[in-house]
Amino acid sequence: MSKSVNVAIIGSGVVGSAFINQLNNLKTAIKYNVIYLALNTSQALFSKDYKPVDLSTYTTTETQQPLSLDDLVSYLKDSGKPTIFVDNTSSEAIANFYPTFIKSGISIATPNKKAFSSSLKIWNDIFESSKVEGAGLVYHESTVGAGLPIILPLKDLVTTGDKVVKIEGIFSGTLSYIFNEFSTTEPSNVKFSDVVKVAKQLGYTEPDPRDDLNGLDVARKVTILARISGLEVESPTSFPVQSLIPKELEGVQSVAEFMEKLPNYDNDIQKVKDEAFAENKVLRFVGQVDLETNKVSVGIGKYGFDHPFASLKGSDNVVSIKTERYPNPLIIQGAGAGSEVTAHGVLADTIKIAERIAK
Amino acid sequence: MSKSVNVAIIGSGVVGSAFINQLNNLKTAIKYNVIYLALNTSQALFSKDYKPVDLSTYTTTETQQPLSLDDLVSYLKDSGKPTIFVDNTSSEAIANFYPTFIKSGISIATPNKKAFSSSLKIWNDIFESSKVEGAGLVYHESTVGAGLPIILPLKDLVTTGDKVVKIEGIFSGTLSYIFNEFSTTEPSNVKFSDVVKVAKQLGYTEPDPRDDLNGLDVARKVTILARISGLEVESPTSFPVQSLIPKELEGVQSVAEFMEKLPNYDNDIQKVKDEAFAENKVLRFVGQVDLETNKVSVGIGKYGFDHPFASLKGSDNVVSIKTERYPNPLIIQGAGAGSEVTAHGVLADTIKIAERIAK
Ligand SMILES: NC(=O)c1ccc[n+]([C@@H]2O[C@H](COP(=O)([O-])OP(=O)(O)OC[C@H]3O[C@@H](n4cnc5c(N)ncnc54)[C@H](OP(=O)(O)O)[C@@H]3O)[C@@H](O)[C@H]2O)c1
Ligand SMILES: NC(=O)c1ccc[n+]([C@@H]2O[C@H](COP(=O)([O-])OP(=O)(O)OC[C@H]3O[C@@H](n4cnc5c(N)ncnc54)[C@H](OP(=O)(O)O)[C@@H]3O)[C@@H](O)[C@H]2O)c1
Repeated sequence: MSKSVNVAIIGSGVVGSAFINQLNNLKTAIKYNVIYLALNTSQALFSKDYKPVDLSTYTTTETQQPLSLDDLVSYLKDSGKPTIFVDNTSSEAIANFYPTFIKSGISIATPNKKAFSSSLKIWNDIFESSKVEGAGLVYHESTVGAGLPIILPLKDLVTTGDKVVKIEGIFSGTLSYIFNEFSTTEPSNVKFSDVVKVAKQLGYTEPDPRDDLNGLDVARKVTILARISGLEVESPTSFPVQSLIPKELEGVQSVAEFMEKLPNYDNDIQKVKDEAFAENKVLRFVGQVDLETNKVSVGIGKYGFDHPFASLKGSDNVVSIKTERYPNPLIIQGAGAGSEVTAHGVLADTIKIAERIAK
Repeated sequence: MSKSVNVAIIGSGVVGSAFINQLNNLKTAIKYNVIYLALNTSQALFSKDYKPVDLSTYTTTETQQPLSLDDLVSYLKDSGKPTIFVDNTSSEAIANFYPTFIKSGISIATPNKKAFSSSLKIWNDIFESSKVEGAGLVYHESTVGAGLPIILPLKDLVTTGDKVVKIEGIFSGTLSYIFNEFSTTEPSNVKFSDVVKVAKQLGYTEPDPRDDLNGLDVARKVTILARISGLEVESPTSFPVQSLIPKELEGVQSVAEFMEKLPNYDNDIQKVKDEAFAENKVLRFVGQVDLETNKVSVGIGKYGFDHPFASLKGSDNVVSIKTERYPNPLIIQGAGAGSEVTAHGVLADTIKIAERIAK
């Protein structure tokens, strides 16, 4: 008799559909019964008798109205089996419900940053309730650097008694690409606004590039790493975050107008780049957590030509973790976005939970 | 009632004593009862009634003769509790006993490469028996790159359906140091034999530096990574391994004589270095696993000045994992040896096992 676990999946977007596909092809001893699948906010697959959803045909199966979160908790609890809730959305409403799931004994695997990077209260609520015997477990590797092994290795270091000294890294694939193109170890005359334009054309930015340039996504990731390291960061807006949006363009309504006016501000950032270049340094948009000064920050940093951040390629992420045990930092680098790598991180978390709770 | 797990620890050398200290300071919900502690081949602490060893005073407690491996298996089985066997030795005899432990339901956490890098038969025996319901689990993160997160992330990728394309890396702290000093991006006249001499004086090499220079330790690590990636490598001597020991000095008896004669061969490797430098490349001693050609090899490789391997510092290890999902490779870098980082890797494994089996 092989062990099994129930799974509820929310979201079938970029990450969600890759996750479903990877799960459907998984070959492990544990059996994963998907008893609830919400494709989106208006369509779900489930049945009162908990018959598993067929993941090979889910896109063509007739759907129902999704359950409310309250009803979903009851539905999952009443299954009477160990259950993993996989949240592949970026919904804040779902994130706020994590403590309820956990207290009901339901475990969570998710790439959704919201619950971990909003108020300190919900962070504490999640991890305090998760400690109670019989409570659900929480794994969220893909909330920082997508599938790169960052969250668990960092938690392992802290749990086994290491002390974080400093974390710094490039946590936005979009801003990684923009700065890798804009500021290189070879002389170049490329303009900042031109790089942003190309990044937008290639689909590397959000539909409104200001959603990348404001630094808030990086601030959320840094909040998560800081909290794991032991800093009680109140929220992702409680520390300095440098926005790359010129002040005068913050109020601009349309994306088109923003893109049209951005070249007017090229000189400002060009000056910073030229100064850095004169010191044999490149510019990178980094997040930093400093446990010596207890300071967290997000913004442009300067790095010597031989620093690992200077040789970054494409839209890779990188994190450098300096601890008492790793005075020469531990460095992890690679794709920090993308459907397959993100989904793999969520699935690896789902498996780790299943290995602990399956019956 | 908090959960607990029994632990048996073998070895209190460099890694073992750091492990014991970290375990003694661990603050987790699970209780770890050390019911057997073999300090070395002749001294052990345990009692018939399974009273836990006090890890604060173990160095001054009266010891007994260690149990034979057969008797140890019986002793641990008879405790009637979930048990983790922590092997902090490099013993081949203990490694050969892993399948017996596993089949008896005892889990294993270890930095000892032997079981995983010797014959393919014992590898298969370990992982086949571990799959059976009720069998022990096996975690061995610290067998490659010490505490760096390599083994588990690689296993996660493979399990979730990714395909490894190529793995290459610098897996020996000693050879990392030697080549980082010998072959740099700046012109230098430093001699290979002088670097080896300094490395020996600093205590970076084995007492006999030929135990590093023969490449066998790297071959063992590469064997492990190749097997996880799906290549059925027969043994660490079944693929080409370039030795840095000049042929003529292989038979030399004393370390002193070897060190004295090594400078006679400086010209050979200097030529290789100069040729690489003319192409803007450095030399590094790397292990490679190529899944496109199904080839495994260990030896000197050439890397461009802007390659991550070229900017390596000190005695750091680095691994580059190129997969279908990570065409731009996933890179992990940092200290690949040392008591605290290695012990932390073993302890993190021990915790992961305990989280799955503690009762
Ligand atoms: N894409 C990446 O490379 C990447 C990398 C790292 C982390 N992540 C994280 O992964 C998560 C998913 O990203 P994504 O790129 O897959 O986003 P996406 O393509 O926008 O997909 C989100 C999906 O969730 C659904 N959804 C939202 N709220 C829901 C609700 N209340 N009930 C049911 N379904 C709901 C959406 O349905 P509707 O269409 O009805 O809204 C949509 O199907 C996000 O948290 C993101 O930050 C993504
Ligand atoms: N040191 C590192 O940085 C590092 C990094 C990665 C992995 N590792 C691995 O970690 C393991 C331990 O390394 P280490 O540096 O701690 O070695 P070490 O200092 O030589 O310690 C080995 C210990 O194991 C004991 N031992 C050996 N065989 C035994 C047996 N049959 N029964 C009981 N005790 C036995 C030894 O006792 P005796 O003195 O009686 O022989 C000694 O106390 C090795 O497998 C090594 O490859 C080490």
